[in-house]
Amino acid sequence: MPSIFTKIINGDIPCYKIAEDDDNFAFLDINPNAKGHTLCVPKKEVDKLLDLDEASYMKLMAFSRKVGQAIEASVECQRVGMSVIGLEVPHVHVHLIPLQSMKNATFQYKESLKPEEFEKVAQSIRDNLK
Amino acid sequence: MPSIFTKIINGDIPCYKIAEDDDNFAFLDINPNAKGHTLCVPKKEVDKLLDLDEASYMKLMAFSRKVGQAIEASVECQRVGMSVIGLEVPHVHVHLIPLQSMKNATFQYKESLKPEEFEKVAQSIRDNLK
Repeated sequence: MPSIFTKIINGDIPCYKIAEDDDNFAFLDINPNAKGHTLCVPKKEVDKLLDLDEASYMKLMAFSRKVGQAIEASVECQRVGMSVIGLEVPHVHVHLIPLQSMKNATFQYKESLKPEEFEKVAQSIRDNLK
Repeated sequence: MPSIFTKIINGDIPCYKIAEDDDNFAFLDINPNAKGHTLCVPKKEVDKLLDLDEASYMKLMAFSRKVGQAIEASVECQRVGMSVIGLEVPHVHVHLIPLQSMKNATFQYKESLKPEEFEKVAQSIRDNLK
């Protein structure tokens, strides 16, 4: 049974796509801690970050850096935070979260966005990807 | 004025040291979200993760992976989470946190440990470093 992220990567579930390369895929978190909150996911379905082989882990981290820099160029924030928790979906995902305050990092506060707001921020992040 | 982490790296403030290489330094968080909560810090004093040059960022991530695997081998947990927030100390630090539940990831719950408990978990993580 494919994970929800594999279904998103395969196009079986729609998403606001940000970026893709051979190994990784990035899209907006649909229940974001802040506007621009993005998930970076390896296409290989592995449960835990530290169980990824070293090459896959390093590729995911390099990919997350590029996406994070594009988020930082797109969204007004103090900085972009990075979190890997993974207690809910058993498929590695790096959260990249524009932080204004600690509130955006706790996963207890959620931002409500309209579809056109998701579209707009996704477009802006894509435009800032080098 | 050196950051508190630079003072720890230089030995001016004591710590429960976990690991060190040419570029990075790891020690136990003294106000931990969970037993074994460790900080990985680049020796170069840079404020934001995404402002590190690519080579330094990749070295920090490779270092954090090794330390994280040693934590996972040492501390009973569901998995080791990774967070980079950085709203308090302006010197990049990767939090590696043994997670039993979401509680350990929010930074709102803190664990109280005695000095001998810090010593014991630090020794165990060091023993598990490859």
